Amino acid sequence: MEEREISKAVIKRLPRYYRYLGELMENGVERISSGELSKRMSVTASQIRQDLNNFGGFGQQGYGYNVKYLYEEIGKILGLDKKHNMIIIGGGNLGQALANYVDFEKRGFYIKGIFDVNPVLKGLSVRGIQIHMLEDLESFIKDEEIQIAALTLPKSKAEEMTRLLVRYGIKAIWNFAHIDLDVPSDVLVENVHLSESLMQLSYNITRYEKEHPRS
Amino acid sequence: MEEREISKAVIKRLPRYYRYLGELMENGVERISSGELSKRMSVTASQIRQDLNNFGGFGQQGYGYNVKYLYEEIGKILGLDKKHNMIIIGGGNLGQALANYVDFEKRGFYIKGIFDVNPVLKGLSVRGIQIHMLEDLESFIKDEEIQIAALTLPKSKAEEMTRLLVRYGIKAIWNFAHIDLDVPSDVLVENVHLSESLMQLSYNITRYEKEHPRS
Repeated sequence: MEEREISKAVIKRLPRYYRYLGELMENGVERISSGELSKRMSVTASQIRQDLNNFGGFGQQGYGYNVKYLYEEIGKILGLDKKHNMIIIGGGNLGQALANYVDFEKRGFYIKGIFDVNPVLKGLSVRGIQIHMLEDLESFIKDEEIQIAALTLPKSKAEEMTRLLVRYGIKAIWNFAHIDLDVPSDVLVENVHLSESLMQLSYNITRYEKEHPRS
Repeated sequence: MEEREISKAVIKRLPRYYRYLGELMENGVERISSGELSKRMSVTASQIRQDLNNFGGFGQQGYGYNVKYLYEEIGKILGLDKKHNMIIIGGGNLGQALANYVDFEKRGFYIKGIFDVNPVLKGLSVRGIQIHMLEDLESFIKDEEIQIAALTLPKSKAEEMTRLLVRYGIKAIWNFAHIDLDVPSDVLVENVHLSESLMQLSYNITRYEKEHPRS
């Protein structure tokens, strides 16, 4: 499959296409036009055609897309056809919430362990995933070939932990701490800054109230 | 302050400016040039000037920005100068993790209650925030003037709950369910789709590995 330089905006939309196509497959839909997909996703049909053309285009004019094929091809682009071993740093509520997501495994993300400093948690497990102490982190990352670390620590501890993770060979950090991590160029970071998402909601509320003053 | 039509990309960057300016204030910095801010934030100085010019511009050429003033003005744009009452739907790990974030209150988001269907949780509380049963939802939303509902339910229950929330007068939903909610045009939704964020990380890993094949 031909692949060109792809914009960030397109990449952000791919997981959404993937999710919708997965739902269509579950509902037994085999083929869909960009028009129908557009209606369901509230994206224009031309946007969809344009996005998918970035990857060589998967449809035929007037014939629509093969749902399963498109789903699998987008999966490959997203790297979901490969297995990714993952650990969670932080056994608090957020760490446990992540450990409880069954969906991650369906997408190829295997949570191999949870790490914490709290000795009370030692040996406990969440959905069969054991909580380990930090002293085992280095060997665990090597032995279990861990690629991704989900970082659910408070801001104050996130930087020091990041240095450790990088030293132990972690190549990708899924960061939930409210801080921009400083990492070498060969380490990838994806941020989930929850309070920033809430601020965007608040911006939209404020904007909406200005435009629709109550009489 | 003059306010023009602002692009989504700018709005996405505002919370980050806000966070950085807050950190500068904590460190006693009173004034900063766009150049310095740029270095810290890994955004170009011209991007910063351009972004802030959307709101009339807060700086003077060669003199830099007043940190506290800029922080407060961005806070106002984001609606953080107002109080927002919030509830959490779902008392599981994710709901409890959200209830434990002290930072939300600092930004004007007050979590007034948590709602769940599990009678075992009835009357329990997280950081002083009580867990209520669903039968109290309607009156609670009215009595406590709840504006925002954080939805931490599984996909299968999210749609029905959304209909209830809308009927009970909720105007903004912070959605953690892996589904795009169908709401009337006067109800605002901000999505946090965790698995989509993880897929973006996976995309970047795949891309990186292609560009840097191991020898």
